[in-house]
Amino acid sequence: MSINFNIIRKLGRARAGRLSLPDKETINTPVFMPVGTQAVVKTLESRDLSALGVKVLLNNAYHLYLRPGMNIVNEAGGLHDFMNWKGGLITDSGGYQVFSLPGLRKLKPEGIYFTSHLDGSRHLFTPESNMLLQHALGADIIMALDVCAAYPSPDDEIKKSVELTTDWARRCLGKHEELGGKQALFGIIQGGVIRSFRENSAREITAMNFPGYGIGGLSVGEGPVLMNEVLDILDPLIPEEKPRYLMGVGTPQDLWEAVARGMDMFDCAMPTRIARNGTLYTSQGRLVIKNAAYARDWSPPDPQCACPLCSHHSRAYLRHLFNTHEITALRLSTLHNLTFMLNLSDLIRNAILSDDFEETKREFMDRYKSGDIPE
Amino acid sequence: MSINFNIIRKLGRARAGRLSLPDKETINTPVFMPVGTQAVVKTLESRDLSALGVKVLLNNAYHLYLRPGMNIVNEAGGLHDFMNWKGGLITDSGGYQVFSLPGLRKLKPEGIYFTSHLDGSRHLFTPESNMLLQHALGADIIMALDVCAAYPSPDDEIKKSVELTTDWARRCLGKHEELGGKQALFGIIQGGVIRSFRENSAREITAMNFPGYGIGGLSVGEGPVLMNEVLDILDPLIPEEKPRYLMGVGTPQDLWEAVARGMDMFDCAMPTRIARNGTLYTSQGRLVIKNAAYARDWSPPDPQCACPLCSHHSRAYLRHLFNTHEITALRLSTLHNLTFMLNLSDLIRNAILSDDFEETKREFMDRYKSGDIPE
Repeated sequence: MSINFNIIRKLGRARAGRLSLPDKETINTPVFMPVGTQAVVKTLESRDLSALGVKVLLNNAYHLYLRPGMNIVNEAGGLHDFMNWKGGLITDSGGYQVFSLPGLRKLKPEGIYFTSHLDGSRHLFTPESNMLLQHALGADIIMALDVCAAYPSPDDEIKKSVELTTDWARRCLGKHEELGGKQALFGIIQGGVIRSFRENSAREITAMNFPGYGIGGLSVGEGPVLMNEVLDILDPLIPEEKPRYLMGVGTPQDLWEAVARGMDMFDCAMPTRIARNGTLYTSQGRLVIKNAAYARDWSPPDPQCACPLCSHHSRAYLRHLFNTHEITALRLSTLHNLTFMLNLSDLIRNAILSDDFEETKREFMDRYKSGDIPE
Repeated sequence: MSINFNIIRKLGRARAGRLSLPDKETINTPVFMPVGTQAVVKTLESRDLSALGVKVLLNNAYHLYLRPGMNIVNEAGGLHDFMNWKGGLITDSGGYQVFSLPGLRKLKPEGIYFTSHLDGSRHLFTPESNMLLQHALGADIIMALDVCAAYPSPDDEIKKSVELTTDWARRCLGKHEELGGKQALFGIIQGGVIRSFRENSAREITAMNFPGYGIGGLSVGEGPVLMNEVLDILDPLIPEEKPRYLMGVGTPQDLWEAVARGMDMFDCAMPTRIARNGTLYTSQGRLVIKNAAYARDWSPPDPQCACPLCSHHSRAYLRHLFNTHEITALRLSTLHNLTFMLNLSDLIRNAILSDDFEETKREFMDRYKSGDIPE
């Protein structure tokens, strides 16, 4: 086993753990992982991520397969060297990206045929070719090629996605073992929001004894209530000692609820995407910096925050940068929102370690509220 | 006098000096000043500029007048506080920006009427209103409102621009003295590429005894030969002990030629603008990073350079970031080109101090060449 995961404290179903990747700094869990789609977290440099304290991030195999292509990344010595990133790296299979190409993809038992969103060229991901791709990219953790059903989907489509996901997980595992190497392959559990399908998928995938498990097919429109129900179903079905990675989730509130249901790892493009649109997470809720109310507001975006934005600049200055379409605005907001998510992970973890989860969660939720800061 | 300028060595006409602004770190001259049009150097934070060793930068009064407006900047405590910049600051008057709005401006003896490029609203800059504007913005050095003739222009237009520039300089000076404060007001010499007009302008402007002089109306299409001829004319006409600021110039080669002709200060948007288009200055010449030749080039953009780009990333990675339209590419290239211009200023200065100007210049020119690096 190339990774090591230890739960150091459990409080209810919430877990505080340590994840060790080969030759990398230990990762404290629960952990939020920034999304570096194309071997870069948009607007940031790799050294910015180190300075923020990021220990692990996600890259997207689909995007890197198209540009610059696996051969170039492999020639660089893999993604770590390509982007000069010393921390941990996960690649997803690209299955979700391909699934998100409506009309451009066709699912077959052998794999998924798709058309590049860039130039219309035609491609095929099979479980085997995808393992070759992710091995060439060289992340520490790689994900099995899975099939994600849209929400809502007819039962027979969800059933089919579970069956293919199981079959492909087996084929991924076979190819992965054939290829050898230090990477850890995680299986992915699908099944929409249907109890029996989730149970089947969890049973079939965990039977293959992966070193960790992704939960896929959530945060695709089903809403937090149904998502949390699925997590309640899955928690007892996944071996306790393995890390659980809730893929593509989520909001600050989602993180609390998912950790409360036994999840350990998270990635989401939302914090960085909304940052580039001028929406900042703060301890009081979301702040929409372009609002006229901030034109002469000389306080930092979040007075509670010590990030490079909040320790140097005012709301009025950031608003000016957004209003004048300055790229610096996108960078500063990205640094801020990632700091928020990293601090949130720490807050949640420390609440578990100090036996204070429910109270800390309630305090956070009360303060954070659900909407934007009133002007 | 709120600024202090000392020439510590002169070699031929080239000067190495020290410029002191109130409460700021001493600025070594010759100095290249990055352009921070809208109170930000595009893609960078103020702390990036400090880290690069920038000691003084330029802001544009025209842009700041439109957005966020002088009242907001003034309320912040001036530009230094608004952008959280501890170093030196110059604002230009905005005259050049207004001059660059073809069809949107009308020159009258009282001032210049113009239409905002943003929303079509109508405005008037008079010498007096412009001093109020630049005082409100609060830079350390401010520039007189001048009139720049296009190149080429009929003689009578150049003549008129010189006359207005002189008249407006006098009015600026009157208003500036009335307003008081610690700022230093520089006069600007115009006159196109016509010897007699330049001589007249230099005589009239220097007679007003400004603490420093801008050379305007160059690098507007006349080419390096004519520009250097004008500098040859001006050098003996400007009091030796005053700093000379060659506005809007220029290329690496321009800097050498202008310093050889007695110039001390430079600003130019080109290094940062071409950076954002993927053109990098290197010790060997300009490098166009999007070229296919760099797709698998694992060397740093400039092996001679220790900037954040060259010390962390390969040409292949930077090319990937440009090809995938990642904002990080613009930032990394900007950091690089500014580092190049700052290093170039140091190189030129040290060549003066060590009695080595001509040889160092020749070596630089031989290595740098005029065009792009061959693929």
